[in-house]
Amino acid sequence: MKILIIGGAGMVGRKLAERLAKDGQLGGKAISALTLYDVVPPQKPAGATFPVTIATGDLPAPGETDKLVADKPDVIFHLAAIVSGEAELEFDKGYRINLQGTMNLIDSVRRAGNKPRLVFTSSIAVFGAPFPDKIGDEFFSTPLTSYGTQKAIGELLISDYTRKGLLDGVSIRLPTVCIRPGTPNKAASGFFSNILREPLAGAEAVLPVSEDVMHWHASPRAAVGFLIHAATIDGEKLGPRRALSMPGLAVTVGEQIAALKKVAGEKVVARIKRVPDPFIQGIVAGWPRNFDAKRALALGFVPDASFEDIIKIHIEDELKGKIA
Amino acid sequence: MKILIIGGAGMVGRKLAERLAKDGQLGGKAISALTLYDVVPPQKPAGATFPVTIATGDLPAPGETDKLVADKPDVIFHLAAIVSGEAELEFDKGYRINLQGTMNLIDSVRRAGNKPRLVFTSSIAVFGAPFPDKIGDEFFSTPLTSYGTQKAIGELLISDYTRKGLLDGVSIRLPTVCIRPGTPNKAASGFFSNILREPLAGAEAVLPVSEDVMHWHASPRAAVGFLIHAATIDGEKLGPRRALSMPGLAVTVGEQIAALKKVAGEKVVARIKRVPDPFIQGIVAGWPRNFDAKRALALGFVPDASFEDIIKIHIEDELKGKIA
Repeated sequence: MKILIIGGAGMVGRKLAERLAKDGQLGGKAISALTLYDVVPPQKPAGATFPVTIATGDLPAPGETDKLVADKPDVIFHLAAIVSGEAELEFDKGYRINLQGTMNLIDSVRRAGNKPRLVFTSSIAVFGAPFPDKIGDEFFSTPLTSYGTQKAIGELLISDYTRKGLLDGVSIRLPTVCIRPGTPNKAASGFFSNILREPLAGAEAVLPVSEDVMHWHASPRAAVGFLIHAATIDGEKLGPRRALSMPGLAVTVGEQIAALKKVAGEKVVARIKRVPDPFIQGIVAGWPRNFDAKRALALGFVPDASFEDIIKIHIEDELKGKIA
Repeated sequence: MKILIIGGAGMVGRKLAERLAKDGQLGGKAISALTLYDVVPPQKPAGATFPVTIATGDLPAPGETDKLVADKPDVIFHLAAIVSGEAELEFDKGYRINLQGTMNLIDSVRRAGNKPRLVFTSSIAVFGAPFPDKIGDEFFSTPLTSYGTQKAIGELLISDYTRKGLLDGVSIRLPTVCIRPGTPNKAASGFFSNILREPLAGAEAVLPVSEDVMHWHASPRAAVGFLIHAATIDGEKLGPRRALSMPGLAVTVGEQIAALKKVAGEKVVARIKRVPDPFIQGIVAGWPRNFDAKRALALGFVPDASFEDIIKIHIEDELKGKIA
């Protein structure tokens, strides 16, 4: 089985490649080759028993996606995107990468003719406020960002190309990935991870919102699990509705902190500094808080068991088991 | 006020042009010029007191939409589309006209820079079965045709371009237009009009489904009213959710026939022949039956008052008051 990861240099792409290298198989079939593609060179995962090809390029450039699928991969993970904030600031760039890139990709896949499973990472940004407390599987997409618009269009196209038998697509809307490894970034959502990751590493972190703010989370490990499951699930079970909100955990910031205290103790929790920021508060108020992801659960997508687990996964995968 | 109708040769486009010619104004502003554009030459409406330009061309051809909006129309009605059945059979043609054409148009409008009101006729084909008995304003778009997919994408793009201040768009999902004037066509939905129009004109018509089949209708006059209202409504009232299901009348075929009997008598109704067609029955079973178009009603879109009215409108507008 040949696998292509588009967006292999991102955090989720890297963790997916590591998981595939560890497993050596996908859905019971041995992996014969893995290509990691991104705009910057992705890292080869350690310990792969199959050949790994690193490729870089500009996804929407003419001919680029034809080259990418020339060897007819059996499974394609399309994770590449200009992120939300950047797509909002750079309108043309966002549409070029996130929409034209995806359109070129599915047309190349169609021309290649081998109907691979295509897993597309969509986003809860396809939803725009106001929404119900829990967003159900049949709630409409009214994105309030260009990024969300581009993801919603990608979902529609992939469902239509699938319905027409041109490829075999599944679009999954990932929850906010938490705890996001790495260094603090300026994303408005960054604090959800920062207030856990930094204290666990011995550093202070700023909490800009009140403790009753609820949000929708999945660990990097759960996110990779969603991708693997989406790559191997029986398409017949999905029918023509190929876009799914993934199951996450809806927890308040207060519950995040309580879980941190339980796992890591009062000393670690004391490193969180409360510095209310009305700007961040305003942005966060427009975000989905909770979902009723019935369909994905029924289809076997597995969320994290608890927020404590999310913290333990970070300690295990990123901190080699050690809390500072 | 300068107005451009793209798709001016179609039935709705023609009736819209006639209405504008009759009114001489739109939203209280005198019409200074009207351009009717289509792939075949649209007809000039009779009695226009303003100059009417007829233009033809291939909407998605390079440079075409730039030319179309070069004189910066204040209001653009975008009605042009490859219809459902054809878009399904001719995949590339459908995407080229219905998606690329719309994408080119909004990019040209953006470059022109005058932020016109753009009224886009979407369709209830953005919804795909299974759905609730009444489709609410927040129900999701899972089209089961490429046409519906292209319309749903048009809605998303126009909402995003509007949110970014690049144009001022409103997408309206028209009910099935009934009674459709002209000759019987092979569209699966044709019988909804045929069983009324043909008997009213003295001819027989075939009813291929049972009388309990319910569907969602609007007269051509109501459809033109929706377009006019969409062109003149205050954008602030709409907010960022720019796609609306229009209010129609949900009636069963039995209720259609009862209304025909009331308006035109038993002799006319006797011209309907019942010839069940399992193929048509199967297609119709997957169509929306009824909507709860709360938002459009609250925003002042006015549906037909009764199905009898729909029949009377046809007799008035198409038959000069005379029943055969």
